[in-house]
Amino acid sequence: MSRKRVAIVGVTGSVGQEFVQSLENHVWFEVTQIAASERSAGKKYMDAITWEVNGPIPSYIKDMTVGSVDDLDLSQLDLVFSAVESKAARGIETKIAALVPVISTSSAYRYEEDVPILIPGINDEHAELLEVQKKNRDWKGWVAPLPNCTTTGLAITLKPLYEKYGAKKVLMTSMQAISGAGRTPGVSAMSISGNILPFIPNEEDKVRKETKKILGRLKDGKIEDADIGVSSTCTRVPVIDGHTESVFVETAKEIDPQMAKQAYDDANREITVRGLPSAPENYYAFHEDPTRPQPRIDREVGDGMTTTIGRVEKEDLFDHGLKYVLFSHNKKMGSAKGAVLLAESLYKKGKF
Amino acid sequence: MSRKRVAIVGVTGSVGQEFVQSLENHVWFEVTQIAASERSAGKKYMDAITWEVNGPIPSYIKDMTVGSVDDLDLSQLDLVFSAVESKAARGIETKIAALVPVISTSSAYRYEEDVPILIPGINDEHAELLEVQKKNRDWKGWVAPLPNCTTTGLAITLKPLYEKYGAKKVLMTSMQAISGAGRTPGVSAMSISGNILPFIPNEEDKVRKETKKILGRLKDGKIEDADIGVSSTCTRVPVIDGHTESVFVETAKEIDPQMAKQAYDDANREITVRGLPSAPENYYAFHEDPTRPQPRIDREVGDGMTTTIGRVEKEDLFDHGLKYVLFSHNKKMGSAKGAVLLAESLYKKGKF
Repeated sequence: MSRKRVAIVGVTGSVGQEFVQSLENHVWFEVTQIAASERSAGKKYMDAITWEVNGPIPSYIKDMTVGSVDDLDLSQLDLVFSAVESKAARGIETKIAALVPVISTSSAYRYEEDVPILIPGINDEHAELLEVQKKNRDWKGWVAPLPNCTTTGLAITLKPLYEKYGAKKVLMTSMQAISGAGRTPGVSAMSISGNILPFIPNEEDKVRKETKKILGRLKDGKIEDADIGVSSTCTRVPVIDGHTESVFVETAKEIDPQMAKQAYDDANREITVRGLPSAPENYYAFHEDPTRPQPRIDREVGDGMTTTIGRVEKEDLFDHGLKYVLFSHNKKMGSAKGAVLLAESLYKKGKF
Repeated sequence: MSRKRVAIVGVTGSVGQEFVQSLENHVWFEVTQIAASERSAGKKYMDAITWEVNGPIPSYIKDMTVGSVDDLDLSQLDLVFSAVESKAARGIETKIAALVPVISTSSAYRYEEDVPILIPGINDEHAELLEVQKKNRDWKGWVAPLPNCTTTGLAITLKPLYEKYGAKKVLMTSMQAISGAGRTPGVSAMSISGNILPFIPNEEDKVRKETKKILGRLKDGKIEDADIGVSSTCTRVPVIDGHTESVFVETAKEIDPQMAKQAYDDANREITVRGLPSAPENYYAFHEDPTRPQPRIDREVGDGMTTTIGRVEKEDLFDHGLKYVLFSHNKKMGSAKGAVLLAESLYKKGKF
């Protein structure tokens, strides 16, 4: 089997570098073109970057020449991964999607009516909206954005509960990693060392809109948002990688921690992404040990692709409900490697 | 006016040291005796401690001799500040209170029916329960414990809202400072650096019980707990001093951020502790700037005695309610200096 030819756009930035690593020796995908802004165009990858990702620079990429976006030969590509900053993303992704499918970590297209926000294994059926999108826009490709990395862990952990027990209200407080803000400019060390920043612009609105959409239902070519109230307070804490979230959820039906454990165990067995190259052995890790999750321990689990749940207790302030703490790796499952897993999932479905 | 003679028991520990600093040059109180465990007894204070508090060791204490608790001459004391660890506190405070009033940072007596949990300015009227306590126990003194430092900020910020708008449910996530765990053993640097610990044993139960009691009503010689559901998830974060809490509160009546601001402004003007030696100029700092509160900035405000509120928004998931973030200094208002402010408040009331 010859591998699918993929490009990484925005390949020099932090998310782009995560893509470079996530696609090393990929069994199904081969990185054949890479692009970034004009500043890097024409340079060898090695000369265009300051490597930020844990682990060595993959050798396949070192001598590849970074092109500009306009240089991409779209006729020679099966898929494009976009790690472009949101402002520029809109124009770039529009242009590419006219010819080639795009999987994006940016928010540019997330809130469009004919665009699903996909988390592999969580709302696979929304992928059918990509066909509507192609038709609507008269594109040969499509744009499939991932959610914001703070939404990822919340939606992933809510899904099995929502399916079995319903969810009426979710009140979440996030303790987000520094890497979520990127490096340039990112959060300054002066601001975050030994400190908490209680505000991340636009984040809470994203979490609300995206969670409702991801857990929604595809009907007549549209996604009907899930009827869940979602509120959050998003904060930045001095943790390098991985978002921790404290969740209070009111369910529609009676639930307790053992029932939740069962739901996650079942999901681990039934999850559609099982066995895909970038999928972890366990999609969910459920802890009865109250000292978990911890970012420093749990970010390593499943190479950052496992979502960890702990501190699960009945929430007596609701008629039915739970409180729990989740951990999700913002740079792995919540970003490039999650996008690669999504690509694998869509590839298996024959979407490109 | 001659100053009241006070002792500090548990004077060598971290909270004891905060007492030492909080009582330096106090206009109303003079530290005339100090006590600690047998290990320190008989030593000069300087030789018995490793100083942990910001700022120099107050000179008044340097050459004082640390006694054992049994050495205290209670007949020569008007008040005892207890900074004893909870296990030992019960016995020690019982013995002292038989003769002399005790203000304590320990939890030993907090949950007794005839013991108020006092926050100066917040539930002053509960101080009347001290008379019941004296009578019940046939003591000449009484024990007045402060709440847990995590309850402090929550109860302080809820009080003005509760009075004007009622409170039905409170869902709180704390991000607590390392210093809350003390130094020996405390939290190890290995555990907390760049990490979050999602569990603090017993903390959530304390927050629930104490908040309901503090906001309760003294009636017929008992405190009727406030009819508020309180739930929390308490975490430890890599911040040295000061607890940050993300709060969702359902009120009984319609409320919005401007009404909350007004309630805190009014409280600032009317708070009973105004003008006491350890009281801050403003009991509450209300921020419309969404980047506040921040531990590193706000712990300095009012020398750690001001409680900061920010990120105040309507909480649409409730019929009426707010979400907000608070910051409270666990080692100042939430501990020794808060205890000194309580002493000042009780002294003004003629309670000792």
